[in-house]
Amino acid sequence: MEDNFSNWYTETITKAEMIEYYDVSGCYIIRPWGFFVWKQIQKFLGGRLELMGIEDCYFPMFVSKSCLEREKEHVEGFAPEVAWVTKAGETDLEMPVAIRPTSETVMYPYYSKWIRSHRDLPVRLNMWNNVIRWEFSHPTPFIRTREFLWQEGHCAWATEEGCSREVLQILDNYAAVYEELLAVPVVKGKKTEKEKFAGAYYTTTVETYVPAVGRGCQGATSHNLGQNFGKMFDINFQDPEHNERSLVPWQNSWGLSTRVIGVMIMVHGDNRGLVMPPRVSSVQVVIIPVGITKDTTEAEKQALVAACQRLEEELRVGGVRARCDLRDNYSPGWRFNHWEVKGVPVRVELGPKELQSQQLALSVRYNGEKRAMAWDGEVAHAMHEFLESIHHSMLEGARQLRLQRTRRVTEWADFVPALNTKNIILAPWCGAMDCEDNIKKVSADESKAAQEDVREDERAPSMGAKSLCIPFEQPESVEGRTCICKGCTAPAKHWVLWGRSY
Amino acid sequence: MEDNFSNWYTETITKAEMIEYYDVSGCYIIRPWGFFVWKQIQKFLGGRLELMGIEDCYFPMFVSKSCLEREKEHVEGFAPEVAWVTKAGETDLEMPVAIRPTSETVMYPYYSKWIRSHRDLPVRLNMWNNVIRWEFSHPTPFIRTREFLWQEGHCAWATEEGCSREVLQILDNYAAVYEELLAVPVVKGKKTEKEKFAGAYYTTTVETYVPAVGRGCQGATSHNLGQNFGKMFDINFQDPEHNERSLVPWQNSWGLSTRVIGVMIMVHGDNRGLVMPPRVSSVQVVIIPVGITKDTTEAEKQALVAACQRLEEELRVGGVRARCDLRDNYSPGWRFNHWEVKGVPVRVELGPKELQSQQLALSVRYNGEKRAMAWDGEVAHAMHEFLESIHHSMLEGARQLRLQRTRRVTEWADFVPALNTKNIILAPWCGAMDCEDNIKKVSADESKAAQEDVREDERAPSMGAKSLCIPFEQPESVEGRTCICKGCTAPAKHWVLWGRSY
Repeated sequence: MEDNFSNWYTETITKAEMIEYYDVSGCYIIRPWGFFVWKQIQKFLGGRLELMGIEDCYFPMFVSKSCLEREKEHVEGFAPEVAWVTKAGETDLEMPVAIRPTSETVMYPYYSKWIRSHRDLPVRLNMWNNVIRWEFSHPTPFIRTREFLWQEGHCAWATEEGCSREVLQILDNYAAVYEELLAVPVVKGKKTEKEKFAGAYYTTTVETYVPAVGRGCQGATSHNLGQNFGKMFDINFQDPEHNERSLVPWQNSWGLSTRVIGVMIMVHGDNRGLVMPPRVSSVQVVIIPVGITKDTTEAEKQALVAACQRLEEELRVGGVRARCDLRDNYSPGWRFNHWEVKGVPVRVELGPKELQSQQLALSVRYNGEKRAMAWDGEVAHAMHEFLESIHHSMLEGARQLRLQRTRRVTEWADFVPALNTKNIILAPWCGAMDCEDNIKKVSADESKAAQEDVREDERAPSMGAKSLCIPFEQPESVEGRTCICKGCTAPAKHWVLWGRSY
Repeated sequence: MEDNFSNWYTETITKAEMIEYYDVSGCYIIRPWGFFVWKQIQKFLGGRLELMGIEDCYFPMFVSKSCLEREKEHVEGFAPEVAWVTKAGETDLEMPVAIRPTSETVMYPYYSKWIRSHRDLPVRLNMWNNVIRWEFSHPTPFIRTREFLWQEGHCAWATEEGCSREVLQILDNYAAVYEELLAVPVVKGKKTEKEKFAGAYYTTTVETYVPAVGRGCQGATSHNLGQNFGKMFDINFQDPEHNERSLVPWQNSWGLSTRVIGVMIMVHGDNRGLVMPPRVSSVQVVIIPVGITKDTTEAEKQALVAACQRLEEELRVGGVRARCDLRDNYSPGWRFNHWEVKGVPVRVELGPKELQSQQLALSVRYNGEKRAMAWDGEVAHAMHEFLESIHHSMLEGARQLRLQRTRRVTEWADFVPALNTKNIILAPWCGAMDCEDNIKKVSADESKAAQEDVREDERAPSMGAKSLCIPFEQPESVEGRTCICKGCTAPAKHWVLWGRSY
């Protein structure tokens, strides 16, 4: 993992049966072990959106050229990655159609049709679908893929206030997916102009940190689109106070994708494989019979198997996703390893000794701890509580590590050394896009130069630092600070989180 | 509806806000009122599949040419409708990729990789996704569309027995979606060789009947693929009894699509619009305040509004999807009509009189009945029971109508007259594909000839009759019967259900 993270990742996700590589480049098969995580996220986030009053719907995957190109900045951002269908069977289509890279241009012509009066507002729609972004850069399963699954929400409001409030409510729910389901801590903030969504007024984001490589990874984004798309797509409604005047609604859009699964794997995994956060693991507890020797009688064996099955049932009835692995064509050791690679949070080893003492022997995946648990009428409840405590420990552990690796830097001289030791950096910035570009370029150059004497396979990547976000929670006042950018003497406007990133 | 069913359908689904027409031909927007039905189906069927032990996953939407073309019969069936991506941005792809019309060719190369031993079997996977079939015939929203949503299941078994049993278990679950959720009765049966899925060993089906036009409509299909795909995709496993021999697993595949929503609309709708079956209606009970006149005081109005809201809450707490419509910029009559078009099963009109007597005035959408219901502590329970009784009446009504319109015919002379009076037909068949072709052709010709004197807009369509299925439940022994086909004297093998169809 430390030596070659990219190999580790590939091996882990394939051995754990999360992903199978596919014969169309940039596309991957999400196997049941991985897809279960997505289902849990769909239930959790879907439930939250429903409570907010947002409705599910489905818009087509194809978008006509004329709609796709209606908003200039937006299409410029996406055009190079848009996939085009030009043929059906042997027939060339008269008008090629694009496959959605995101659905603003698919949906907003119809918002224009549906919205007439302030009484038609807000329109609050969401869909769970697949989108295509035909990236030519190196793909990474879950993290950067040509097809991915996500939800995309699109709301239109009469007022800026309603629109902006919802942008943040959604961001809070995205943070909850990471922290409450996946045990991954996030930093909430705003993207810089350079990094915002193409065509947006501003973009808010939850940013994550991958300790093994010291990189940031954008978790999910929620955009305030302002009235920009509304103007381009002729969306307007009669001003309730001046009949003859029409107003353009405020819009937002927001999406969370299967990328979250990749982040979860990268943040928690270790050299033995996956480490699943309990709330999304399709198996939370695996039960394996042990202690069978050549002296064990058939009756003793059968008693052991029956005990494993009884424990499985007791745990399941109590709401714990437990599974026995009774495959006697594999040794217990082989099976231990199998479920370790898959990251099952708790392993229970059940032998004649445990059966007699009614004390279960637990092995905890995330920290390797061994502990005992009484097998009494409360076992499902105790296990549930224990799994919850694992969730909290994983989240807290990841948070502490991120805090340790978030270096506050105010002198350029400290920037690249911090970057090259797996840190993300909080540093003041003047707000100029030139400085942002410059920080990326200079940090790449200096990083390369600084490592000329380091063995090639031990070098930090020479990639420069990007702005990850302007954290909502600023570490302290930025007053009196100057911009971190080498050579810039302008006063800083914000503390910005910088880092190498996925 | 009787005069021009196709116009009725288009108007109903747009006015009811189920569908919005879209600017790419053959694609439609499923609006929240329609999508809610699909979500209910996903929960219901998804839960059943989970109980069966089938796992969800996701395979890519794109398929390479070489995989797509691996099974000859199958690809011949789909090739003319396959959409091809040939360009990304401005770049022509080196290898164009197809969009899945169904995922046999996407998935089975990996089944070949995953399946080695009988212990790897059964493999039982399902996915909910979108597929593309670029049909050039006239599209109909929900019923025949270029993009549609469905689930597709794909299982591989060591034995024919396991495989075949599952084919029927799935078919039973499809029947349950229609009957238990949508109140649409089905006939279960087997497709003829001519009508089976391309490449399958045999296809089983649930067939529905649309009374307004007297046509059948295929509801959903479950295929036994035999060992055919397994051979083509090199799927095999070591024979557990002869180490040196390898066996090909038995496979099945099965799908249920958003077409079900179209069938539901066509079967239950009437001249006033949609009639929603209660179990899938996003609003089951709409509450509208009535009896406000110019003499009503502000305090009386407020009491009425508060009462509507209190009733809504009581019903919701009791598990009934109730909604008040308090929009005072629309008259009660306008609102009655609005929810009638949308097909809400029960309307409650709440006025000063009802408030005083604590007797609710109910209007039932499917049969126009008016009835009273006591507004006491049991109201949610009573309403739930009443909605359930509506479900059963709708199902039973549709079943009776289908029975009346299922004509048993043993002489060719009776075939076309029955067809032209909105019937589907049970008639004996010898099993020859030539006869099946002939029945279609001759019934079309005779139907056209018989109606030369009928006014054009009152004619039955001249389309011929197809075999819908060979019903599992045969009406009686077919022994001694000859084939219904004009001129054929061969002994019949089965009673077959024939009809015009979607």
